Amino acid sequence: MKKVAIIGASGFSGEELVRLLLSHPYAELCALTSRQYSGQTVAQVFPRFAHHPRAKTARFSEPNAELVAKQAEVVFLALPHGVAAEYAVALLRLGCRVIDLSADFRLKSAAVYKEFYSHDHPAPALLKSSVYGLPEIYRSQIKDASLIASPGCYPTSILLPVIPLLRGGLIRPTGIIADSLSGVSGAGRKVELDYLFVECNESVRPYAVPKHRHLSEVEQELALAANTPVTIQFTPHLIPVNRGILTTLYVAPAVHFARGIEPGAPTVASGAAVPPATSPEAVVTLESLAQKIADCYESAYGNEPFVRLLQGQALPDTKNVAGTNVIEIAWRLDPRTGRLILMSATDNIVKGASGQAVQSFNIMCGFPETAGLL
Amino acid sequence: MKKVAIIGASGFSGEELVRLLLSHPYAELCALTSRQYSGQTVAQVFPRFAHHPRAKTARFSEPNAELVAKQAEVVFLALPHGVAAEYAVALLRLGCRVIDLSADFRLKSAAVYKEFYSHDHPAPALLKSSVYGLPEIYRSQIKDASLIASPGCYPTSILLPVIPLLRGGLIRPTGIIADSLSGVSGAGRKVELDYLFVECNESVRPYAVPKHRHLSEVEQELALAANTPVTIQFTPHLIPVNRGILTTLYVAPAVHFARGIEPGAPTVASGAAVPPATSPEAVVTLESLAQKIADCYESAYGNEPFVRLLQGQALPDTKNVAGTNVIEIAWRLDPRTGRLILMSATDNIVKGASGQAVQSFNIMCGFPETAGLL
Amino acid sequence: MKKVAIIGASGFSGEELVRLLLSHPYAELCALTSRQYSGQTVAQVFPRFAHHPRAKTARFSEPNAELVAKQAEVVFLALPHGVAAEYAVALLRLGCRVIDLSADFRLKSAAVYKEFYSHDHPAPALLKSSVYGLPEIYRSQIKDASLIASPGCYPTSILLPVIPLLRGGLIRPTGIIADSLSGVSGAGRKVELDYLFVECNESVRPYAVPKHRHLSEVEQELALAANTPVTIQFTPHLIPVNRGILTTLYVAPAVHFARGIEPGAPTVASGAAVPPATSPEAVVTLESLAQKIADCYESAYGNEPFVRLLQGQALPDTKNVAGTNVIEIAWRLDPRTGRLILMSATDNIVKGASGQAVQSFNIMCGFPETAGLL
Amino acid sequence: MKKVAIIGASGFSGEELVRLLLSHPYAELCALTSRQYSGQTVAQVFPRFAHHPRAKTARFSEPNAELVAKQAEVVFLALPHGVAAEYAVALLRLGCRVIDLSADFRLKSAAVYKEFYSHDHPAPALLKSSVYGLPEIYRSQIKDASLIASPGCYPTSILLPVIPLLRGGLIRPTGIIADSLSGVSGAGRKVELDYLFVECNESVRPYAVPKHRHLSEVEQELALAANTPVTIQFTPHLIPVNRGILTTLYVAPAVHFARGIEPGAPTVASGAAVPPATSPEAVVTLESLAQKIADCYESAYGNEPFVRLLQGQALPDTKNVAGTNVIEIAWRLDPRTGRLILMSATDNIVKGASGQAVQSFNIMCGFPETAGLL
Repeated sequence: MKKVAIIGASGFSGEELVRLLLSHPYAELCALTSRQYSGQTVAQVFPRFAHHPRAKTARFSEPNAELVAKQAEVVFLALPHGVAAEYAVALLRLGCRVIDLSADFRLKSAAVYKEFYSHDHPAPALLKSSVYGLPEIYRSQIKDASLIASPGCYPTSILLPVIPLLRGGLIRPTGIIADSLSGVSGAGRKVELDYLFVECNESVRPYAVPKHRHLSEVEQELALAANTPVTIQFTPHLIPVNRGILTTLYVAPAVHFARGIEPGAPTVASGAAVPPATSPEAVVTLESLAQKIADCYESAYGNEPFVRLLQGQALPDTKNVAGTNVIEIAWRLDPRTGRLILMSATDNIVKGASGQAVQSFNIMCGFPETAGLL
Repeated sequence: MKKVAIIGASGFSGEELVRLLLSHPYAELCALTSRQYSGQTVAQVFPRFAHHPRAKTARFSEPNAELVAKQAEVVFLALPHGVAAEYAVALLRLGCRVIDLSADFRLKSAAVYKEFYSHDHPAPALLKSSVYGLPEIYRSQIKDASLIASPGCYPTSILLPVIPLLRGGLIRPTGIIADSLSGVSGAGRKVELDYLFVECNESVRPYAVPKHRHLSEVEQELALAANTPVTIQFTPHLIPVNRGILTTLYVAPAVHFARGIEPGAPTVASGAAVPPATSPEAVVTLESLAQKIADCYESAYGNEPFVRLLQGQALPDTKNVAGTNVIEIAWRLDPRTGRLILMSATDNIVKGASGQAVQSFNIMCGFPETAGLL
Repeated sequence: MKKVAIIGASGFSGEELVRLLLSHPYAELCALTSRQYSGQTVAQVFPRFAHHPRAKTARFSEPNAELVAKQAEVVFLALPHGVAAEYAVALLRLGCRVIDLSADFRLKSAAVYKEFYSHDHPAPALLKSSVYGLPEIYRSQIKDASLIASPGCYPTSILLPVIPLLRGGLIRPTGIIADSLSGVSGAGRKVELDYLFVECNESVRPYAVPKHRHLSEVEQELALAANTPVTIQFTPHLIPVNRGILTTLYVAPAVHFARGIEPGAPTVASGAAVPPATSPEAVVTLESLAQKIADCYESAYGNEPFVRLLQGQALPDTKNVAGTNVIEIAWRLDPRTGRLILMSATDNIVKGASGQAVQSFNIMCGFPETAGLL
Repeated sequence: MKKVAIIGASGFSGEELVRLLLSHPYAELCALTSRQYSGQTVAQVFPRFAHHPRAKTARFSEPNAELVAKQAEVVFLALPHGVAAEYAVALLRLGCRVIDLSADFRLKSAAVYKEFYSHDHPAPALLKSSVYGLPEIYRSQIKDASLIASPGCYPTSILLPVIPLLRGGLIRPTGIIADSLSGVSGAGRKVELDYLFVECNESVRPYAVPKHRHLSEVEQELALAANTPVTIQFTPHLIPVNRGILTTLYVAPAVHFARGIEPGAPTVASGAAVPPATSPEAVVTLESLAQKIADCYESAYGNEPFVRLLQGQALPDTKNVAGTNVIEIAWRLDPRTGRLILMSATDNIVKGASGQAVQSFNIMCGFPETAGLL
């Protein structure tokens, strides 16, 4: 059993951490803090967990790094960016391991942080040692990390489908487009007009076009995978569901392809984003390219407990991942345009936030990676 | 007053036609047919219209072209594709003007029809004379047409934002991507597992990837606007709202641009879909390009009663067009990628189907174009 | 044409008044006020009306009774209770006719007002002359009123089904229960945690049990209909729809009844709320009682343009009244319990608020009662 | 470990049984059958469970009692009524213990079954030995039962709040009203027009008024608790959520009460359903009655793991029980009417169906009652 704490447990991610850690077979939730709910029990603040045996005794306290450090070995931070860094600095100094769900330690460059978050980074010295908590990509670094920067929800839905293809050289690093649809919990528990039921129900809308903050971590990680700078297009939309992100990605295969014909045949993709093939040899069959993509994903994720590679006609659907730590991935080659379309579905609060943080926790502590997550 | 009829009035488009034509100041709804509801009144079949003075007397009859032609001068067809053509042929021969909401007469090429709809076109001789009923583009041809092929819902949401820019030479005809989100009514009143409440609520999913039927009419119309063949990428998604389509389009400006600097400066769009500028002269400022785009839209749609060009920070939202014949359009230039993002919102049943059909009807009859639609 | 104004036009009721009055054939919307939006146009504040010809010129101003009185003959107040009274006093003094959508003038007793609204009534002298704006009940008084107290949404859904039966002596005035389900817009445009999308979606909950404020006006009006004091049970619930109230009422017929047997037979309603019949003569057949109820409703509402008495197997459904000024009413006799169940469906913002206010306006001005409402 | 099987695993209840039993610490899911999905794996049929380690190997087979009996000791039946009885008879004969989620064995009287289900009971001999699987009421009988009739969703939401009060003599057995709101999954996975997304979303409606089938088991169980025949009023409504039942109950305390005054003071409940107090001694204070009710519930449910007695201002909310086996119960005395209002919230598929069935299973097998349910 590992003693854990949650600082900032009153938002959606914090609430989900409470759910996951209360039921975790190897975690003992020793402290949870919230300015707003200090003094109240979990049962009072989150009635939906009130039937859990520990909900009536687990009590929120004021956030205090010293006190928390005395009680817990691993601390989850579910705080706004900027605020999280302060606690992380103190807790690390006090010997805790820290899993931060905010954006504070996701970027390696303090300059990029300032560009996207509009203020100086509060603890730039820690950027080097923090590990981006995407287990499928950074499992070995997570194991020994003292500071995990758990990824954002949109980045998770984009990076997992794209990174293996970039690493494998199967797609070009240029021209990538990510079109994402997020449930309303993605905005956090913000009491603002835009997130009222009547404003969201029977409504669909894009927002933060064209420069959402999550671009910064996505481009950093794609650049590492591609070994070259990457600039992507990203458009988030708000849709009337509680949970879930559906991301559709448009990427260009590194080679030209054509359906059902011999390698070397001319492609028909007159409207494609892909520049024309410069020689007949550059063209492969759709079937052979499809096999390479399938192999690439199988090799990257075939044994991953939380990545579901869809087969046959199946396409991702957020209802199939809601409440789970799973990401569904499907893809289609379009011989008409020469493009590859990638699609993913995740629960923004689980695989996109708290579930992924617990997955990192399991790795850090040497527990089975699926502990508390199935 | 013009005598009108609706054939196939029991689906969502038919129901909306009933609503619009019952209240239309210059239309007299003389006949409406439905195999399923023959003999029943509008009040019985559509309780939501039952308070309309005519709902208790207007009665569904069996579909019969001869009988309908005796009662009405203009006939709306809200039938499945394939079936619509049969009625259109008969009604035109009997002297009616026909507004067809199906896909049967939207394509100029019977071969393309067969490719996308998987059967021979039932009346290819009529393809030449039919007019694609997109009033903002084909107003003058609609005026005298005897056969209107009213556009599909997705095509409307794509074509209206793109055509003016293609016509104006402001964007490239290659590499266009349309990512669309549709309410469930877009699937029609189909009693299938996929459209049950529990399967759609708290769910978001792509479908028909990568070759949806609507591609055929979109590409035909874009090619006419660009004066060159056009192949686009199109991904539809189903979202849990009753009505509304939100389309996000990714297009490449015909010129390179850069923010806030002199024309001729190097662009920063390393990850853009747009090939690198071949000479400094090919680069314009973001501001000057933005002005050209604004002018292009203003010139195309400044006087259009149903096109709302959003200003300032506003972005389209389906809740602002639900129940109306309006399309909202906004756009953003992204200096990071060199792309232009277009966004539109429509009601799939009104501007995407029945409202647009009534708009064509108004033009055909010389009525004010907004009659019955405001 | 009558010159009208709206004071407090930024909430849901105000917004709906804007919609209805912009399109009203005999109303000229001369002024609309809102502290929050002063200076902005209707097109800016309510994008969904932006395509209306007048939306770009109609501009919100600061609320000022003197200025408004110079511009308008009839003024709609869509203000919080307490605030509305202040404007009503001033506007009446300045010669305007006032239609108040708040609760301020619905009660005849200042003492009851204080009991339910927790502060002294701000203008008790006006309580006598104000008319409760339920057109189906008070049409003749509305005609000449200078101050209309437009009913609340829950009261409308309860009073219209119950009053004719009470007046006709067909039901007992004791033991009435109203169980109501309201869409979230019923809470007003309040930016509070309870009304966030994620808190309301996939949630159903009662609130304000057992003493909701609307009880006061319901009991006042039922007492007038019954000519005796009436105390009812009322439980409101919040359900995840934007609009609509579904009310189910449990009442006791004034006589005992039994199915399909002779008058005078013993009733089987062992578990009924209705006390046992004291003599065989007090028992009627279900069929004869059903006929009396049907006749009573037909006589009360057979010619009402906005009351839909459902026939056959049909039961009320909020989707059939959403966006309309219609109330649907159905009823069932239950021979097992001896009770009568009444059910109604309305749009809380239209028949439950702004549509009903416009209906009163039409009556006051001698316009067709359905003007602008069909 | 106990070997279990599910017959009819393709509906909503069956799907939830699959979820619960796959993760159950002491159950081994050895067989699951479905005519429709025979041959497919759990991962194929229910993508949302596909990440479970056993989902790719667990395979649906044709329903065959002999084969199932060879594999499993306890069999869950998630079949339509009428069909379930056939399998139950066969399985019991083959030595299995059976937990039936249908209505087939809930009623003790074959005549009442015929009245409500419109056909002869297929196995009346088993009615005597079957146990109504409401663990909080029949725990000791469940322990040794070979045939469990697991309760319906509406009955669970009604019986748990009412039975302790009836048993304790605190309320009258006459005049009880239950007003219930159910999510759409309550209708089962029926592919019918009424349950399409567009027909349910933005809609609320009553149905099956006034004689729903579930009345039969509710009245049977209430009569047993009251030791006298009971007839209740029950109105179900359909609301646009996936899961959840909110039930509001109106009952009459056995004694008169009045707020804050001495016992014996006259009650003010002029409109109450409760007959006037016949003597001053019959009147108690609200406070003392409230204490008795609280004590009664505490005594009945204070140690129940799945009953949550709400305290203070809290009222039930389906979102707090969705996905759990918990029932939330709250109550309010209304001194204005003399009534007691009971409110409950459950997940219709868990506590209202499959979770409750697993709770019975745990009891039958001597496992901790919460095993697999927290």
